[in-house]
Amino acid sequence: MKLATRKNGTRDGELVIVSRDLKTCVPVPGIAKTLQAALDDWDALALRLESAYQELNQGNVGTAEAFDEAACHSPLPRSYQWADGSAYVNHVELVRKARGAEMPETFWTDPLMYQGGSDSFIGPRDPILVAQTKGWGVDFEAEIAVITGDTPMGVSADNALGHVRLVMLVNDVSLRGLIPGELAKGFGFFQSKPSSAFSPVAVTPDELGDTWRAGKLHLPLRSWLNGQKFGEPNAGVDMTFNFPKLIAHAAKTRPLAAGCIVGSGTVSNKLGDGPGKPIAEGGVGYSCIAEIRMIETIQDGEAKTGFMEFGDTIKIEMHSEQGENIFGTIEQEVRQYGGA
Amino acid sequence: MKLATRKNGTRDGELVIVSRDLKTCVPVPGIAKTLQAALDDWDALALRLESAYQELNQGNVGTAEAFDEAACHSPLPRSYQWADGSAYVNHVELVRKARGAEMPETFWTDPLMYQGGSDSFIGPRDPILVAQTKGWGVDFEAEIAVITGDTPMGVSADNALGHVRLVMLVNDVSLRGLIPGELAKGFGFFQSKPSSAFSPVAVTPDELGDTWRAGKLHLPLRSWLNGQKFGEPNAGVDMTFNFPKLIAHAAKTRPLAAGCIVGSGTVSNKLGDGPGKPIAEGGVGYSCIAEIRMIETIQDGEAKTGFMEFGDTIKIEMHSEQGENIFGTIEQEVRQYGGA
Repeated sequence: MKLATRKNGTRDGELVIVSRDLKTCVPVPGIAKTLQAALDDWDALALRLESAYQELNQGNVGTAEAFDEAACHSPLPRSYQWADGSAYVNHVELVRKARGAEMPETFWTDPLMYQGGSDSFIGPRDPILVAQTKGWGVDFEAEIAVITGDTPMGVSADNALGHVRLVMLVNDVSLRGLIPGELAKGFGFFQSKPSSAFSPVAVTPDELGDTWRAGKLHLPLRSWLNGQKFGEPNAGVDMTFNFPKLIAHAAKTRPLAAGCIVGSGTVSNKLGDGPGKPIAEGGVGYSCIAEIRMIETIQDGEAKTGFMEFGDTIKIEMHSEQGENIFGTIEQEVRQYGGA
Repeated sequence: MKLATRKNGTRDGELVIVSRDLKTCVPVPGIAKTLQAALDDWDALALRLESAYQELNQGNVGTAEAFDEAACHSPLPRSYQWADGSAYVNHVELVRKARGAEMPETFWTDPLMYQGGSDSFIGPRDPILVAQTKGWGVDFEAEIAVITGDTPMGVSADNALGHVRLVMLVNDVSLRGLIPGELAKGFGFFQSKPSSAFSPVAVTPDELGDTWRAGKLHLPLRSWLNGQKFGEPNAGVDMTFNFPKLIAHAAKTRPLAAGCIVGSGTVSNKLGDGPGKPIAEGGVGYSCIAEIRMIETIQDGEAKTGFMEFGDTIKIEMHSEQGENIFGTIEQEVRQYGGA
């Protein structure tokens, strides 16, 4: 089934069930008022939500309304955990290569993961608000994320897959200019990660059919920067750590509570043994600006593509093999915080 | 006023108002059922909560019950953000000195802060569950923490103090054996920080009188390891970054939502220009085992005090100048996860 959260002036918004074609929706206050409430009591409520979803798809719901992605908040407007992995190790290797640093071999066996801020997500069409672009290096990062149910401490990767409740897309905005200073301090990202935005719709894994297999989502993740196709790497390719492995990593020393979001990190594909090619050269492109800048640096000695400026836009979507928009569209513009 | 959350089988527990002397309490479902609900609507509810608190203190509440700290969860059993600073730079300098590393000068001007897991806090009397102690280096960290209201992005330190809603204590359990590997990866703590526990009671700053000044809490933070006094450093001394500065740091690039918890980091006092002395030598001791191990390493070439083993206990309290227990008592035992 497909679920979304409509903005309604409250902190957690209003849960709606969305039809498979994203055309209609219906609130289900008799089952759950918010997505967190549904996740908190998933075992008792999932079948009822699924049943309402089937009715909606069959056109049997008289109270169905037109679904407006622009009226949506992120599926969880705030969550209790946002644990973002870096599962496409190719992305990490490229970053390091660009600055001439070796990558430890353990990066291929032990997932990188950071704890993100989760109290103030923004909606999929909300502006990316920053105080300045100069020196901050505003970048998008297109990723896949899953929402888990309650997951016990020490869960094995073999048992983790069953704890995935929902799948969605995320734009994990990064301030590249603030990252080196923060990472040098050793405590990870904080100021370099402003509020993330998620796709309008979160879907249960069964909606993804055979493209959801081996704990990965095997479809291209498409992004457009200022209306120009920028990337369409396949999220099922070159994902060194699948979602069950990321979940097991996150849960090694503490349980994960219902509604925990686990991210894949920036989706990135290699080309043979080398880095991927830009879209303009016939490649699959990239899911963040930093990556094309690394390629440019490696090839030409300097980065030519700039980071995002005020007024720049980023659009992120994923389409099924039949060409349907699965999760709705993330589309955001960079704007000055406190500005007009 | 003083607030606590009683375990009642739900994820967020039941908000109770607690009398100043911690002897009685009363639920206030007509005002707010949970602490998060109170924080979400603080401006509208705080005066009503305060009024109920005054009635309770005056013995006018017929439905008042005995307050049982052991029945409490952490004030927020789960929260949307747990941002822990490292404001006692002395602590950081000691860690570095013990391993012969220089500390960058910027550590005195730019706060260290990490994003902690906040979806599965444990109660103040709940056991510290770990799969193993061998090699993991189970340590306590006694800290002060504040809960903020909604705080705008880019708030100045001058304006941040007014966003503090509540103050409490925290045991930020750390797995010292897992820290070096995680920090070397550059993404900060994750597995090395299992679930934190907070004091049974959170209090509004006015409860602290003059001991809450200049954005710091000027009282000794006392801890006992296996019943032996281990530390009583003054939380108002050697705190390089006060809470307003920590809040401003956390909010530099994104807003903080109501219920965000900001921690001070391990409370640590210097002695003159040098490290503090153990309690046994007449000093104020330490708020974590790692620190005494560093002192031992610096003085004797090796650490003698071991980390916590199964069955070891840690107790943390803070007393007013009149000797009253302000926040109730954190008291936890290390137990094997999945064990008896």
